[in-house]
Amino acid sequence: MIAETLSVGTELLLGQIVDTDAVFLAQMLSRLGITLYFRTTVGDNPGRIQEALRLALSRADLVFTVGGLGPTMDDLTKEMAADVLGVPLVEDVAHAEWLRGLARERGWAEPPASFQKQALVPRSGRGLPNPNGTALGALFEKDGKIVICLPGPPNELVPMAEQSVEPYLREKTSGERQVIRSRTLRIIGAGESLVEDRVRDLMQGSNPTVAPYAKTGEVHLRVTARAASDEEAEALIAPMEGALRERLGDLVYGIDEETLEYAVVHLLILLGRTLAAAESCTGGLLAQRLTSIPDASRVFEEGFVTYSNAAKTKYLGVPAETLARHGAVSPEVARAMAAGAREAAGSDLAASVTGIAGPGGGTQEKPVGTVHIGLAWDGGVISEHHQFLGGRADVRWRSAQAALALVRRFLLNPDDTQFAPGEDG
Amino acid sequence: MIAETLSVGTELLLGQIVDTDAVFLAQMLSRLGITLYFRTTVGDNPGRIQEALRLALSRADLVFTVGGLGPTMDDLTKEMAADVLGVPLVEDVAHAEWLRGLARERGWAEPPASFQKQALVPRSGRGLPNPNGTALGALFEKDGKIVICLPGPPNELVPMAEQSVEPYLREKTSGERQVIRSRTLRIIGAGESLVEDRVRDLMQGSNPTVAPYAKTGEVHLRVTARAASDEEAEALIAPMEGALRERLGDLVYGIDEETLEYAVVHLLILLGRTLAAAESCTGGLLAQRLTSIPDASRVFEEGFVTYSNAAKTKYLGVPAETLARHGAVSPEVARAMAAGAREAAGSDLAASVTGIAGPGGGTQEKPVGTVHIGLAWDGGVISEHHQFLGGRADVRWRSAQAALALVRRFLLNPDDTQFAPGEDG
Repeated sequence: MIAETLSVGTELLLGQIVDTDAVFLAQMLSRLGITLYFRTTVGDNPGRIQEALRLALSRADLVFTVGGLGPTMDDLTKEMAADVLGVPLVEDVAHAEWLRGLARERGWAEPPASFQKQALVPRSGRGLPNPNGTALGALFEKDGKIVICLPGPPNELVPMAEQSVEPYLREKTSGERQVIRSRTLRIIGAGESLVEDRVRDLMQGSNPTVAPYAKTGEVHLRVTARAASDEEAEALIAPMEGALRERLGDLVYGIDEETLEYAVVHLLILLGRTLAAAESCTGGLLAQRLTSIPDASRVFEEGFVTYSNAAKTKYLGVPAETLARHGAVSPEVARAMAAGAREAAGSDLAASVTGIAGPGGGTQEKPVGTVHIGLAWDGGVISEHHQFLGGRADVRWRSAQAALALVRRFLLNPDDTQFAPGEDG
Repeated sequence: MIAETLSVGTELLLGQIVDTDAVFLAQMLSRLGITLYFRTTVGDNPGRIQEALRLALSRADLVFTVGGLGPTMDDLTKEMAADVLGVPLVEDVAHAEWLRGLARERGWAEPPASFQKQALVPRSGRGLPNPNGTALGALFEKDGKIVICLPGPPNELVPMAEQSVEPYLREKTSGERQVIRSRTLRIIGAGESLVEDRVRDLMQGSNPTVAPYAKTGEVHLRVTARAASDEEAEALIAPMEGALRERLGDLVYGIDEETLEYAVVHLLILLGRTLAAAESCTGGLLAQRLTSIPDASRVFEEGFVTYSNAAKTKYLGVPAETLARHGAVSPEVARAMAAGAREAAGSDLAASVTGIAGPGGGTQEKPVGTVHIGLAWDGGVISEHHQFLGGRADVRWRSAQAALALVRRFLLNPDDTQFAPGEDG
């Protein structure tokens, strides 16, 4: 089965929103082994919506429209699909009654026709329930072609697609399944070119394919296989994953949606160690990333956002003299923050971040992007110096990334020479 | 001038990456007043790339292609554009020499042809310098049509578009300029339907248009005007903005890219007040959002991530008995956390968050999404109860959002009855 998606909305063509719906549908179709050759975006214009629908129906068996199902004048998509297919719309009686009830609750004497049109469904086909909104989706079936009209808000589209569309398509394609499966290896501690140099020969194949992606502070390698079943796809991916891991070793910290904070929290849980955080320039980002992981409470009990010098002294015991002599952004302060946080929290480990995130505050000697990461454990305390590029958000993200990477390296390899006690340790 | 964009890449059709390039180009075209009617995405397939190019050239004067300029076998876009337009490609001698030098540095005896093809440029048109990559962009001009081929990586596309393409198009369209300008009013404390009810009549116009967007924990209203100049567009937007603000009052907290944390930090600076944060379920998200704003250090000196009960007692002085009697997720603990943070930090205000972010930890009495926000000031301490929907990330975001909104309401209107001292105050 060949599919196309048609995203409708002038705001998309003005670049005012990012089309995450199209990405979600592409992923769903890929899971189902349904091929997508084209994806089109068009504005809220009746003529161009019809033109795009006709073209898509000439090239594909299954066409998705996204957006334009609501109660406003701009919401035209379902009507255009009905026109192009020649399938009349009829009222879903139960939904229309529910809408009238809503209208009464809002104090409207008579619901406007535009409100009630959210209950219209194809005579040849059916409506699709919307758990999070007032507009029904629409599934048209005519002459072997399928058109599925979905709402634009992702919190309406996603459950409608998962609950109504995916099971329908799974049934439809059960005889001709080809699946596409991917696995992403997430890599920390090496840039894209170094990663490519190590695995270049493995990137030549066509099934599975291996492709690198540079992300902020990390690199991803995606392995993608096509096969007749999940099992066959997995049988293609698994040996390639093994070969890549052999080349990259500990640089691979996780797969797919496993973030670096996920890897660190789970490593802490596995090893039964606890961690505290002391943050200056990241201002809570490190703690926030750690606590975004369910079960973080097993290994992370407290964090300090010590933005001022006074707070660094009060909670972490950083000597005022150290702050005065070396400045808040210094290896000495990073180490004192980590050691002080570990002592205050009574944790096994503590990580600290102090730096200049910008846009202001940089000097010739300590430009914006200067960051020191500290790590304290029962055997010592060290610091690492980084010079990051990018704006405030980038520097903060890379700083938190570097702190997580340092904790991970220590947990994996505490005997590494980097973790020989430093001058303050 | 009518434009279309054509994004090339199978990974886009598999939903493996989000097409931020297309968003960037849409914004650039909107700034230049160039109309975009269609946006298409196609995979790395020669026949379909040609088909999409021919269709785009039949509908538009200016066609952008994105992606497929690199040295691999999949990189075909420039060649397909040359074919469809009938414009031969010739070697840019200086760039070809530079590439050969690069190849020597990499230790290749003879650079492969696929590597050298990155130096090919249209005979009728020109190459576009790439400050961050090895592949030149290509600008074709033929029979009044323009095709511009840009590289896919955003760090290559963005500077090429800004440095080479935007000035070229600004020159081309200087005689027929029409600009599109938008302003977004950001609204907190009212849902989308309440906002729509208040401004429905103002949403009927066609220039400017007014459109609502529901975001997580807030609502945006976007006012968009088309005019011959920036000044004329502003003259259309300004009175509409005034009318919307008159209806919505303090519910409007900012415009365009001004986030709620930006509004709160700037209000604190304006009023010369300081704030501390004490966080349980948000785990640093509130402090991180506040400190994401440059100059936050003027009003925010410290934050506590007290994830465990022990930490709540140690740093914030929450009585163990209060924790035992009411549980960590309770109005009493929210108030004690806020009061304790204010005292420890010596700040004018302190905000606290305690709740159940999920996925685990919910009970019948306190389901996932139960959140208490506390606020302490020199005249008292109050708490607010919320019941949020959504997953862990949503609940955490909405909790931080509610805490910021509460601080903002207090700063704007400290005499409101909500801020009469509570039972603990």
